[in-house]
Amino acid sequence: MDTGDTAWLLAATALVLLMTPGLALFYAGMVRTKSVLNMLMMSFVAIALVTVVWLAAGYSLAFGEDTVAGLIGGLDHLGMAGLGPDSVQGTVPTVLFATFQLTFAIVTVALISGAIADRAKFGAWLVFVPLWALLVYVPVAHWTWGPGGWILNHLGALDFAGGLPVEITSGASGLALCLIIGPRLGFKKDAMRPHNLPMVMLGAGLLWFGWFGFNAGSALGANGLAAAAFLNTLAAGCTGLLGWLFVEQRRDGHPTTLGAASGAVAGLVAITPSCGSVSLLGALVIGLTAGIVCSYAVSWKFRFNYDDSLDVVGVHLVGGIIGTLLIGVFAVAEMTGGPEGLLYGGGLAQLGKQLVAVVAVAAYTFGVTYGLGKLIDRTIGFRASEEQEHTGLDLTVHAETAYDHGVLGHGAPVTSATPAPQKAKA
Amino acid sequence: MDTGDTAWLLAATALVLLMTPGLALFYAGMVRTKSVLNMLMMSFVAIALVTVVWLAAGYSLAFGEDTVAGLIGGLDHLGMAGLGPDSVQGTVPTVLFATFQLTFAIVTVALISGAIADRAKFGAWLVFVPLWALLVYVPVAHWTWGPGGWILNHLGALDFAGGLPVEITSGASGLALCLIIGPRLGFKKDAMRPHNLPMVMLGAGLLWFGWFGFNAGSALGANGLAAAAFLNTLAAGCTGLLGWLFVEQRRDGHPTTLGAASGAVAGLVAITPSCGSVSLLGALVIGLTAGIVCSYAVSWKFRFNYDDSLDVVGVHLVGGIIGTLLIGVFAVAEMTGGPEGLLYGGGLAQLGKQLVAVVAVAAYTFGVTYGLGKLIDRTIGFRASEEQEHTGLDLTVHAETAYDHGVLGHGAPVTSATPAPQKAKA
Amino acid sequence: MDTGDTAWLLAATALVLLMTPGLALFYAGMVRTKSVLNMLMMSFVAIALVTVVWLAAGYSLAFGEDTVAGLIGGLDHLGMAGLGPDSVQGTVPTVLFATFQLTFAIVTVALISGAIADRAKFGAWLVFVPLWALLVYVPVAHWTWGPGGWILNHLGALDFAGGLPVEITSGASGLALCLIIGPRLGFKKDAMRPHNLPMVMLGAGLLWFGWFGFNAGSALGANGLAAAAFLNTLAAGCTGLLGWLFVEQRRDGHPTTLGAASGAVAGLVAITPSCGSVSLLGALVIGLTAGIVCSYAVSWKFRFNYDDSLDVVGVHLVGGIIGTLLIGVFAVAEMTGGPEGLLYGGGLAQLGKQLVAVVAVAAYTFGVTYGLGKLIDRTIGFRASEEQEHTGLDLTVHAETAYDHGVLGHGAPVTSATPAPQKAKA
Repeated sequence: MDTGDTAWLLAATALVLLMTPGLALFYAGMVRTKSVLNMLMMSFVAIALVTVVWLAAGYSLAFGEDTVAGLIGGLDHLGMAGLGPDSVQGTVPTVLFATFQLTFAIVTVALISGAIADRAKFGAWLVFVPLWALLVYVPVAHWTWGPGGWILNHLGALDFAGGLPVEITSGASGLALCLIIGPRLGFKKDAMRPHNLPMVMLGAGLLWFGWFGFNAGSALGANGLAAAAFLNTLAAGCTGLLGWLFVEQRRDGHPTTLGAASGAVAGLVAITPSCGSVSLLGALVIGLTAGIVCSYAVSWKFRFNYDDSLDVVGVHLVGGIIGTLLIGVFAVAEMTGGPEGLLYGGGLAQLGKQLVAVVAVAAYTFGVTYGLGKLIDRTIGFRASEEQEHTGLDLTVHAETAYDHGVLGHGAPVTSATPAPQKAKA
Repeated sequence: MDTGDTAWLLAATALVLLMTPGLALFYAGMVRTKSVLNMLMMSFVAIALVTVVWLAAGYSLAFGEDTVAGLIGGLDHLGMAGLGPDSVQGTVPTVLFATFQLTFAIVTVALISGAIADRAKFGAWLVFVPLWALLVYVPVAHWTWGPGGWILNHLGALDFAGGLPVEITSGASGLALCLIIGPRLGFKKDAMRPHNLPMVMLGAGLLWFGWFGFNAGSALGANGLAAAAFLNTLAAGCTGLLGWLFVEQRRDGHPTTLGAASGAVAGLVAITPSCGSVSLLGALVIGLTAGIVCSYAVSWKFRFNYDDSLDVVGVHLVGGIIGTLLIGVFAVAEMTGGPEGLLYGGGLAQLGKQLVAVVAVAAYTFGVTYGLGKLIDRTIGFRASEEQEHTGLDLTVHAETAYDHGVLGHGAPVTSATPAPQKAKA
Repeated sequence: MDTGDTAWLLAATALVLLMTPGLALFYAGMVRTKSVLNMLMMSFVAIALVTVVWLAAGYSLAFGEDTVAGLIGGLDHLGMAGLGPDSVQGTVPTVLFATFQLTFAIVTVALISGAIADRAKFGAWLVFVPLWALLVYVPVAHWTWGPGGWILNHLGALDFAGGLPVEITSGASGLALCLIIGPRLGFKKDAMRPHNLPMVMLGAGLLWFGWFGFNAGSALGANGLAAAAFLNTLAAGCTGLLGWLFVEQRRDGHPTTLGAASGAVAGLVAITPSCGSVSLLGALVIGLTAGIVCSYAVSWKFRFNYDDSLDVVGVHLVGGIIGTLLIGVFAVAEMTGGPEGLLYGGGLAQLGKQLVAVVAVAAYTFGVTYGLGKLIDRTIGFRASEEQEHTGLDLTVHAETAYDHGVLGHGAPVTSATPAPQKAKA
């Protein structure tokens, strides 16, 4: 065990955990005032439910010894069996490695909620989250990073910090779910503007901060690779932001705050799989590409009529594909310890492997999520009632309103919709 | 000195320091618009005042060599004498150890403010904070963690990260103070709903993030114990959240955002003393127990008529007692290096020790705080005037309002209560 | 390479990066509702633009081998050439050192934006940022910290974490720019109160948190010096807060939230250059001095008629000068490894060196920034149109409003100024 590697992984794990509250604020700022709290709750319950599932079985199935041809891990570590404080994996405590990996599962599930904002039945989400984590996240994580996983070991595709298990799975699942539950009332008619853009920027800032733990932590130690992944992460977020604003300025005449946040996130999404294998030049280009392409991709939903409310498809699916594929172009041996991309003399080999992995993960994810979503929809229903959606999920599901400015400085009257006094505070 | 251990403790110290601004937002979101800033100020001045007191005398009295039968430390380190940059404690710089411990004192004092929200005299708080830190926090910290402290060394009760000096002292003191200054105007009559629940969730997110530094940092190094404490902290926060929401759903028919935040905090409170001594199963049960019990405990104030405004008693006192006692049930030798709980074959011995410590600390704290509070109340007064409370402390004490949305997009007129232009910005 | 040192520097770099979103919120909370987003955008684009410039040339010119008499570095590392993942500087990866230094450049540029809030042309800012980074930040960083830099090597002035390249450059540049573009419409007539003080406090909290990475990270390792710098940073922020509130209470009769935030920042500014060279007593006095002096300095703008809107001059220039000079008084050999201040028997020598450095950096910065600002103003213009300023930059430049509470619980009508539906979210 190395205390320096352990120190960095402890800090990185805390950073990744902050990403989910950050994401919750990022999303909550984008919705209308009437379902802000529901948006926050979808992320917070994901933290709790995924943690329980992961400790019970997820870790063992994802990172236990392979049992079926690189498809799934074993049951040796159910309930975290065998992971005492003295157990070591590489140079860090095994329990820390398992916790670090858990934080990835949490934020991936939370990401999906953006596609179905404002209209999902809360009870259905509570059922969906643990099942999805087990049926989709866990196997794909095993394929990509688990001992004997087929993508890593047989195919030889690279994914440093989660283009496949995180970005592509959340994006493809967002698409499946928003197709199942249908568009919000008023989609393409009403403005549905973000109710609080400073909250979006706060969320983006926390996400970016946490992302350094996500990407540089994936080196699983405090070393040069972690440092290079860190800088690549910063660089790609920056060019993503610039790319998106550039398109907005040319297309709409206005660089927006929402565009800046979205562009930074698009760049960060794309560098996630690639941060540990590409050159700095590659990182800059990958971020820029994602910023530009995603700024167009988010409008596809209007053309093809799927209400991916907060653009999980346009940013995470598209950005994740870009980043995973471009490893095949920009990988350098100095970072990967072997494979090289097209630009650095590696030919088309790596690009082909990346493409196979992308297609396999996207297809598997979409299929399973679609089936799971349909099953939930046909049994307990996946969509809130029209009346709930119209009034807002905050008041109807959670019996709360996000803001109560009865005395906001100008004496506005308290609404008649004021719920009863709440008993529970802390 | 070990650079890895030092690296983690540096990061952990920064994390714990973030908890106080996080707590300030957590509390400020729960109060009404008219005393948001006062709530924030109570935490921020606590940072400043406790730091000064700690550097002057607190550290020496708490962590200096014992002078009186395990009751109090010595005066050798007044003004941090003898703590140069080369001094080492264990494997980390002594000055870092002292700073890490300081951050605990800060957040403990800030916690108390929630019990007396909206109605405390600001000047009285400025007097209370340094005296309380010296009279309550410092001795209890010495008993629990200081060299020769009686709880640790003579009694043999365990407290890894602060059930006694942090949670029980703040909770018992909150009870003493809210009994002294009495309920808010309109208690049990008016709704008094949180003015900004997203701010509460932001605060909860920052608290949880910082709590990893609090608990895993208490290992004082980057090792397997820190990693296990980290995972226990995550696990208990999750089951606390689930437990509270479960009760709400069954009792009230609505899982609330405030309940999610409160449940997570209750779980985190309970795992604070126990994170370094219990098994993962223990952590899950402790968090769940705290989430369920505290969700009921917060309503006691309505039955017994003490206005613990933001539930410091219901969450920190009750949660702290749960967590400290359950060490006696779930402690495992693998973590403690010796003592075992009831469930793991240790019998009732450890449970008895934990009970003695809880009773001693709660009684001492309540008594001293009640005396100190009464003294302040009878001399300078501890409660704001009725007129100040009615108008709000922000405008009357700080000459500010939290929000000034004169142009919130719909041209609402600025209130006549607008204070004069402010001269001081940064 | 040392993994512990690297672990701390990785964490510290992430912390410093969080300072810029923190600063963005700190500033955005202080402006009026109509230009909140523009304020945020000035910081976020600074992250992106400074990163690109730094990677292209800034790092090489600042930290490459000296080429001209201690004035500027060389071109060997253009495009970060030669900084592979295996390259080491001291005990950490060179690429990490370069990234850590980059984060300082970013936040310095962002600081300037506070002086010209609410009225700068966004396009002009986009031009100013990269040019200023190259013409001012890069050379001053080379003088102060670069290999062979004249301030460090020839003059022998000390600056641990950036009084000269960060605080004095941003403050002097803020003064130059606000003189060029003139005061806001209504300066000295309208109230212009902060629209959201909790946001200011959130920003202050994140800034303080990040500042531990800034100052303690500047030790470039996890050691006793980092720990002492950490505690000094906490101590000075605290006495800065107390000093400012003390003045407010005596002068105005009200301790304000804005004063608490401003005082803490003033103390942190002043301890930035000095945290690694002064005693704890020195840190307490430096913070207190800055809190008191800056609380008066922020009113000079009314007397001398420069609209330094968010007090970059009064806090960063004045606080930076205080902290840099007082090294000459409070430096102790135990920290500096040699030089001592006036109070510790070092005579006036060090104080004189500090004074020379302050004057040189302030004069160079003011001159170059004034020239650059004038050049931009005369070509593309540096000030938004009167109509844009009147309506607000958010709506006119970014086609957005910060808040859209059409359903804030009491059904306020949406303004006629509602922009078109936004296409881009993430």
